[in-house]
Amino acid sequence: MRQPMTNKIQFWFEFASTYSYLSAMRIEELAAQHGVAVEWHPFLLGPIFAAQGLDNTPFNIYPDKGRYMWRDMERLTAQRGLVFTRPDPFPQNGLKAARLALAIKDQSQKAAFIRAVYSAEFAEGRNISDDEVLITCLTQVGLAAETLNQCQEPAIKAALMEQTKTAQAKGIFGAPSFLVGDELFWGDDRLDDAIQLAAEV
Amino acid sequence: MRQPMTNKIQFWFEFASTYSYLSAMRIEELAAQHGVAVEWHPFLLGPIFAAQGLDNTPFNIYPDKGRYMWRDMERLTAQRGLVFTRPDPFPQNGLKAARLALAIKDQSQKAAFIRAVYSAEFAEGRNISDDEVLITCLTQVGLAAETLNQCQEPAIKAALMEQTKTAQAKGIFGAPSFLVGDELFWGDDRLDDAIQLAAEV
Repeated sequence: MRQPMTNKIQFWFEFASTYSYLSAMRIEELAAQHGVAVEWHPFLLGPIFAAQGLDNTPFNIYPDKGRYMWRDMERLTAQRGLVFTRPDPFPQNGLKAARLALAIKDQSQKAAFIRAVYSAEFAEGRNISDDEVLITCLTQVGLAAETLNQCQEPAIKAALMEQTKTAQAKGIFGAPSFLVGDELFWGDDRLDDAIQLAAEV
Repeated sequence: MRQPMTNKIQFWFEFASTYSYLSAMRIEELAAQHGVAVEWHPFLLGPIFAAQGLDNTPFNIYPDKGRYMWRDMERLTAQRGLVFTRPDPFPQNGLKAARLALAIKDQSQKAAFIRAVYSAEFAEGRNISDDEVLITCLTQVGLAAETLNQCQEPAIKAALMEQTKTAQAKGIFGAPSFLVGDELFWGDDRLDDAIQLAAEV
């Protein structure tokens, strides 16, 4: 019997992030199994890396680390039965997708849209900064193509900047990250521990 | 029934590395359960970080990442029933310990010495560049105090430099790392997958 969802986990994700793809595709089902509700928190890693003096993802700055990450993603997606295509360019520009993820109010459409974007990017290898790709993701989950226009709304732009500032204030330095109260977990490898804690509190 | 140990895993570790402590304390038992032999490979991360333009561990360069790592280590050691003390200074200088780990030929003394050093550092909070601490670790595992002198042998010094070059040539960029054939795994979080692969090949 499922418990009522009084407990929650905040899922902080960046659309360009490979390991966020892994978590995005499994968090909702895993959380539900433990009676935990998921709060979706898109943010941008770019400004956080920039504050650290980095002008690119560490996976591009450090070639050995990058090579390893692609191989690790191949292995992990294969273990989980997920299709994996290396996006080109990498990292993708997830600005509009992140704004849309914030703009969509219905929680189940929001979750479905986020998964649709990650699938377009990492399963199909499509460019998620492309309006046509985003429209496909929106209509796939039952939203009008015109929803895309919300990317240009000042309130949504400001809300995403605010998200990124909140992430920094919470000590988030990478993605995916999970918050259960003030307890921070980093990386898809910690999702199970984070859900476990959320189920207990 | 245990399988004969025809399969092996290379364990690449740096004595200053917090997450290497986690792996060092469990790898031998886990490997034995899967019929896998452990090859112990001390190396130095300093030259590898230096080649990336870093003059310190990322945990000190990026404060949010550092703060997170200490909390993560607290949680993980508590889960595993390991004592954890934050060493001061951090990172510790593991140069002599790494040379000794290379110099000790008997495999079971080598493994015991490595665990003794990690315990001195991360359970007891002792300084592992201190000769007295290293002598305690040596004598604990049945080796003479004079073994310490091997730190100064040119052949041992050269062997450790060679190890670090080999690590770089294998694409190793952090610790702990595991090699099964040419397949590289990074981080204590991947130890189980690495052992699994070693057991299969």
